[in-house]
Amino acid sequence: MKRFSLNQATTKGWPLPDLVAGCLDAGVTGVGLWREEVQEFGVRNAAALIRDAGLTVTSLCRSGFFQQDDWLDENRRAIDEAAALAAPVLVLVSGGLPPGSRDIDAARAHVGDALGELVPHALAAGVKLAIEPLHPMFASDRCVVSTLKQALDLAAPYPGAAVGACVDTYHLWWDDDVWEQIARAGREDRIACFQVADWITPLPAGVLVGRGLPGTGCVELRRFREAVDAAGYTGPIEVEVFNEAVWARPAREVLDETLDGYQVHVR
Amino acid sequence: MKRFSLNQATTKGWPLPDLVAGCLDAGVTGVGLWREEVQEFGVRNAAALIRDAGLTVTSLCRSGFFQQDDWLDENRRAIDEAAALAAPVLVLVSGGLPPGSRDIDAARAHVGDALGELVPHALAAGVKLAIEPLHPMFASDRCVVSTLKQALDLAAPYPGAAVGACVDTYHLWWDDDVWEQIARAGREDRIACFQVADWITPLPAGVLVGRGLPGTGCVELRRFREAVDAAGYTGPIEVEVFNEAVWARPAREVLDETLDGYQVHVR
Repeated sequence: MKRFSLNQATTKGWPLPDLVAGCLDAGVTGVGLWREEVQEFGVRNAAALIRDAGLTVTSLCRSGFFQQDDWLDENRRAIDEAAALAAPVLVLVSGGLPPGSRDIDAARAHVGDALGELVPHALAAGVKLAIEPLHPMFASDRCVVSTLKQALDLAAPYPGAAVGACVDTYHLWWDDDVWEQIARAGREDRIACFQVADWITPLPAGVLVGRGLPGTGCVELRRFREAVDAAGYTGPIEVEVFNEAVWARPAREVLDETLDGYQVHVR
Repeated sequence: MKRFSLNQATTKGWPLPDLVAGCLDAGVTGVGLWREEVQEFGVRNAAALIRDAGLTVTSLCRSGFFQQDDWLDENRRAIDEAAALAAPVLVLVSGGLPPGSRDIDAARAHVGDALGELVPHALAAGVKLAIEPLHPMFASDRCVVSTLKQALDLAAPYPGAAVGACVDTYHLWWDDDVWEQIARAGREDRIACFQVADWITPLPAGVLVGRGLPGTGCVELRRFREAVDAAGYTGPIEVEVFNEAVWARPAREVLDETLDGYQVHVR
């Protein structure tokens, strides 16, 4: 249980004080937070609430979106928010293609350049940037970084203290190269974050909110956990599930079911 | 125009005689057919209709689905149908995970074994089996073969006259390794089929019927055509688009728009 972290997205809509109380009650010590929810509550208020409860912020989701005009300022703000929350990791989703563009190579190269711009600020703030490869079904409109190999190649020019990768089972399970890349990520000290969700079908329209709680789908979750462990990762294991049907249920019930699935399928 | 082929799925619902007449009228000489439609019309009747019109069947879609109990008989029947239609290529979609399974490695290995079972029949019938990697969003429920590299690795043990791969822009565009794999496919004489569709978002529920006509999306279609050409492929270029909104329109109008998109974005 000491590595388990509840990513706030799994229990979307749970007010932060209730989430904190629910985690304490369930013995959960780590939470992954989302910028929108934190901003709404107030960054300082959120930081104090979490700290006073004795919880740890395992990651802040998310920034990136490097095809937007204000990406530099926005990502600097996000780094500052992560630092204020004492979150060691800021998850970056790269964004998709610029409007009208067909040049995915250029969009991917731009991600690498943008990371370079952010590295000094990240180092100064003590926040590691975690490039998150998203499933290729998001490649055009949400994230041009589609594989762990791409994320590691993008991270390679920069110090490990500043740039790593997020290993998310939902996005990477289909990739037969992922096991070698997880081992590489360990060798290169790049595993900044490990997130767990299961793959279920049919996918809903827009494909964003159709993930499964651990154990409800077809992903070899324990194989992933063993792989990141074997690569030397000892950090938190965040469960992050986007699912409309899950969000419609009582959050505490969802947390309990998440913990059950974690015990049976991940640990 | 002589390499263009209209895959029947693009104008789903167009009765075969009308499709043949429409192709002749538009100067289209090649068609890709689907088993369900051909069976409904009668395989012999379809073969005669196409032959008498002077058209060429560029491929038959599709068989595979190796996780089903009757896969061996069903694929042998499909090979016979392709031969009866004088289709040089039978497209194979591997199928997803067996019910309840999380073992994608085993499912992929089974595809390789199943191909081996089919090779003698394919050689005897003069039909090349084209393994089609589908987009990773179909990996669990439709096709465990997700990349061109996987398809080529699966084909490798078997004669090039019996087993090749289908290069489909819709399924492969996100993969930065695809250019190297297309070159490899050329070297290994494995490009059995080249299909074109564009990638558009948002994806519809179930993600099957949300493809774009050539030029309506973000895929570098000409780069793909130039890549297969550079790899030595001189065969047909099939446009295969599954899209509910396209299917709701008059088929001849769709064919004309497809040809326009082909001229501007593929040739």
